[in-house]
Amino acid sequence: MSLHSSLGLASWLGGQHHGPERHWKSVSSLACAGDEDLTFSEGTPTQECTAAILLCTAPVAGLCCITTDDPKLAFIRVLEKMFHVEQVGRVDAHAVIDPSASVHETAVLAPGVVVMSGCSIGARSMLFPNVVLYPNTQIGADCRIHAGTVIGADGFSYHPTAEGLRKVPQIGRVVIEDGVEIGANSTIDRAFLDETRIGQGSKIDNQVHIGHNAILGRSVVIAAQTGLAGSVTIGDGALLGGQVGVVEHTHIGKESRVGAQSGVNKDVDDGQTVLGTPAEPAMKMKRIYAALRKLPDRD
Amino acid sequence: MSLHSSLGLASWLGGQHHGPERHWKSVSSLACAGDEDLTFSEGTPTQECTAAILLCTAPVAGLCCITTDDPKLAFIRVLEKMFHVEQVGRVDAHAVIDPSASVHETAVLAPGVVVMSGCSIGARSMLFPNVVLYPNTQIGADCRIHAGTVIGADGFSYHPTAEGLRKVPQIGRVVIEDGVEIGANSTIDRAFLDETRIGQGSKIDNQVHIGHNAILGRSVVIAAQTGLAGSVTIGDGALLGGQVGVVEHTHIGKESRVGAQSGVNKDVDDGQTVLGTPAEPAMKMKRIYAALRKLPDRD
Amino acid sequence: MSLHSSLGLASWLGGQHHGPERHWKSVSSLACAGDEDLTFSEGTPTQECTAAILLCTAPVAGLCCITTDDPKLAFIRVLEKMFHVEQVGRVDAHAVIDPSASVHETAVLAPGVVVMSGCSIGARSMLFPNVVLYPNTQIGADCRIHAGTVIGADGFSYHPTAEGLRKVPQIGRVVIEDGVEIGANSTIDRAFLDETRIGQGSKIDNQVHIGHNAILGRSVVIAAQTGLAGSVTIGDGALLGGQVGVVEHTHIGKESRVGAQSGVNKDVDDGQTVLGTPAEPAMKMKRIYAALRKLPDRD
Repeated sequence: MSLHSSLGLASWLGGQHHGPERHWKSVSSLACAGDEDLTFSEGTPTQECTAAILLCTAPVAGLCCITTDDPKLAFIRVLEKMFHVEQVGRVDAHAVIDPSASVHETAVLAPGVVVMSGCSIGARSMLFPNVVLYPNTQIGADCRIHAGTVIGADGFSYHPTAEGLRKVPQIGRVVIEDGVEIGANSTIDRAFLDETRIGQGSKIDNQVHIGHNAILGRSVVIAAQTGLAGSVTIGDGALLGGQVGVVEHTHIGKESRVGAQSGVNKDVDDGQTVLGTPAEPAMKMKRIYAALRKLPDRD
Repeated sequence: MSLHSSLGLASWLGGQHHGPERHWKSVSSLACAGDEDLTFSEGTPTQECTAAILLCTAPVAGLCCITTDDPKLAFIRVLEKMFHVEQVGRVDAHAVIDPSASVHETAVLAPGVVVMSGCSIGARSMLFPNVVLYPNTQIGADCRIHAGTVIGADGFSYHPTAEGLRKVPQIGRVVIEDGVEIGANSTIDRAFLDETRIGQGSKIDNQVHIGHNAILGRSVVIAAQTGLAGSVTIGDGALLGGQVGVVEHTHIGKESRVGAQSGVNKDVDDGQTVLGTPAEPAMKMKRIYAALRKLPDRD
Repeated sequence: MSLHSSLGLASWLGGQHHGPERHWKSVSSLACAGDEDLTFSEGTPTQECTAAILLCTAPVAGLCCITTDDPKLAFIRVLEKMFHVEQVGRVDAHAVIDPSASVHETAVLAPGVVVMSGCSIGARSMLFPNVVLYPNTQIGADCRIHAGTVIGADGFSYHPTAEGLRKVPQIGRVVIEDGVEIGANSTIDRAFLDETRIGQGSKIDNQVHIGHNAILGRSVVIAAQTGLAGSVTIGDGALLGGQVGVVEHTHIGKESRVGAQSGVNKDVDDGQTVLGTPAEPAMKMKRIYAALRKLPDRD
């Protein structure tokens, strides 16, 4: 049965069908959905829903609904099916690849991409326009590196001498493991020695800066405009909000959470949630913020 | 009469001429102006002025002055006339334009620009070098998008599942209305569904990040390195300082002001001025800052 | 004698040799060094050292050591010698250079570099991929400009008028003096009038934003994601941490220090160290932070 029928879709998704059969042509948000649209709601919709079909957790009277435990996941599965494009390996004629680089035949390199000597790019990885890989950068399989991101530029390091600042040569490299997505206009610096490493499945947003010799574990999530100074280490599954700054040589534990705009200047324990500048445990920081708001009215 | 004569210039500007006629060859700042230069002062100049001609609000003894209500506007009009270049539509041979994109014949696309499928670019808009437009991005008329800016990259969204993070396909688009200027190395993400929209006449500085599904009204001004998380809405005429962060789904009212480096985690009313992290009304935050400075000396 | 012998290396470095002669093939960090590696320690190593040869300040029993006053400088000298590549002037075929630009024959311009009209680039300077120079930008000798950096885009300036915001034409330029290094994806805006200037030997990290008409002295160091609003001036040898914001027209004195994430809204004296938002003298700010942490527990 067609996935464009609510009955067919319910069957494919393994969901429960409620109300009369409907058909959909396109997808939309709950707020914008018209009567030929499929949409979803993570909870019970509080606004009038004018979609043809709603994916949700509990049926809504008068609507054609498909209920599942996770309607957003169901919706994602539909999008993946609708918008799936069989990826064919392709190096655009306007990409510039050093002959010593190794590019998997299924990788996609867009116009303006520059890949310097000794780099490697794994299967099915996509480099969007104007991405730059400095020498010896290793990109795993199934990575997506968005436009304008620069990987492997020199770490920022100068040694003070009697004659002034002397550049510390940066001879390490960057390794991006499998399944990593990196947003647009981010920068990940090469190591002084050894390597800077982004662990498997990590997700990094736009305009993030990752300093030399940082080591990120698996499935680390970093929101936009966050910056890590040199030699920061981050455990698996940690989540950093946007515009966070982390001081050099700091360790951020596994499954920890760092609130947006925090300034982290000491280690964060596994599972801990911190907030503020300098960052403190979130509960404490919220009490500080509350006290601050009352401060002008004291004595 | 020549605009390079103070008398001719006063007439063209509709200003009042004071002192003997002088001639100018070039323009300069008040501080650097030499005796063949035209310059301006927004107030009464407190430094010695060695320019040939001064645009100002009240005459200065011993100088050739042209007075107007708004000397800076008068100066801008001179600059516009002096530096006006008749713009001729041109797509540089080093730009890469998908055949399905629609580029107005008067638009200018510089080297390294990449325009993907389904994009449109309006009359007289300029894309500076290495700008990237992801699929279906719409750019209105009279826009200026500076070098390295990326419009339409995927919004940052992953859905937690039992098997780990699953990418939420980003199938919406970005719409940039007429008369928008965007600085260098900024990023504006495509919507999950529906659209991310930058309203008419808005001005966005360098290294600004605008998350998926943000909706900006008309004439919004955003200074450098500010970041908006997903689904932020901003009313007409709002002004955000530099390095501001705004939490997702926050609304910033019309004609409001957000001080630099603020962290906005709740809605801002129309016309309100807020400051600090977490942002508070500016008057309150200034009292908090004052109290903070005294805090170490209390009891 | 070969520099790959510890005796030969000690002699070349002018250091003191301790222990039996050893030979090295490659370099590594102290933590990762294997038995064919040369490494260094800035202090006395607290971890077991398994390197062939250690550069350090005092001999370690049982190891082949070379002692010098500054082992890191000694190591840098080795790296410089090992990784030295005779730079040959080269403009990549995928760079786009306006015919009116002046490029020194020893300069290196990578793929995707765009150099607009009237620019000049000095001896031995390197522009990494996708660097963009707007018209009239001047780059001195021995500069390194990393990938994706944009120099000379319009300053962010609009004049309020009865008809709305009117763009202030930006007709000044940017001057980068000799020996400057600028990281990846940074932006340095052209001046409104006159110039934006980066002084000799200054070092600027990734994703730094420098507004129009900023004037930086010699050997200024600015860490990643810091932003300077318009017309900021910075004295020689000042050091700004990462994610700092500086309000327009502020002066930051010679040899001063600004802590990471600070918001500087008033002048900083020569030699002063400031911290926080709004920035205060660091000792004071640390007392404020300490008091803050106790605030929730006060009555």
